[in-house]
Amino acid sequence: MTTEFVLRPIGFVRSPFSETAAIPKGCGARHEAEGDLEILPEFEGGLLDIEGFSHLFVIWVFDRVSGYDLVASPPTDSRTHGVFATRSPRRPNPLGLTVVQLLGRKGPRLHARGLDMLDGTPILDIKPYLSGVAPEDLRRGWLAEAEKRAASAVSGR
Amino acid sequence: MTTEFVLRPIGFVRSPFSETAAIPKGCGARHEAEGDLEILPEFEGGLLDIEGFSHLFVIWVFDRVSGYDLVASPPTDSRTHGVFATRSPRRPNPLGLTVVQLLGRKGPRLHARGLDMLDGTPILDIKPYLSGVAPEDLRRGWLAEAEKRAASAVSGR
Repeated sequence: MTTEFVLRPIGFVRSPFSETAAIPKGCGARHEAEGDLEILPEFEGGLLDIEGFSHLFVIWVFDRVSGYDLVASPPTDSRTHGVFATRSPRRPNPLGLTVVQLLGRKGPRLHARGLDMLDGTPILDIKPYLSGVAPEDLRRGWLAEAEKRAASAVSGR
Repeated sequence: MTTEFVLRPIGFVRSPFSETAAIPKGCGARHEAEGDLEILPEFEGGLLDIEGFSHLFVIWVFDRVSGYDLVASPPTDSRTHGVFATRSPRRPNPLGLTVVQLLGRKGPRLHARGLDMLDGTPILDIKPYLSGVAPEDLRRGWLAEAEKRAASAVSGR
């Protein structure tokens, strides 16, 4: 017997990205895109007081991806890494996680900056961002190494 | 027609908490508990290079909760807030999100600090923690106000 969990969208992303190729990726990619998190009317009551938070976690579904790989080649590196050490969309459970900056709210619509989802992406959950890990406590594994290699390739030109 | 997404555990949490009451909660709660993220053998290949990251996002299921409320009374505040402005377990989709510090790996077991899940909790996804929001850019809404009220109640005694 395999345990299964059935989840349903609480809303949908309205973003400027109609295709994956348009979403900034790789070393130094900036996620400045603005758009809306459009929450379904039946869940609007769950947004009470959310305006007080500057940043939110959004958990969403890579709904236009099927299947997964255990290793992935991220756009930031020519080497492969385990899928759980990357943000690859081809994951055993196709869940995405994005930190967005909340710019404003109009009823069930949260206007936000930092979107990296396709237009129409289903949202599963929203949580307040309460605190972060201090940069001096963070190690960023293969990504830091890939960034170093990319930087030295540029300076060596 | 309602869209549904069916998700399956990639592993389970081994934590010291056999009941919810044992998990630290509320203002000033410290999450220092250590335990393991035990990944299923079929997904072990997805952990390649994960050791390089000091912190991970873990997305998991509140599997011992049923039903949800649109407003919640968090342990940190006597007032109610929209469920999406809290970390309440009673959410439309019962998803949990925890940032853990990765202490070590033994095959499919990730030893980690900062667990706040019950023992046996199903894990849906693990992602590397790449960067955080700077504290000076963060507003923490009702939580900051509740902490201020709690502090002035103590100092007023």
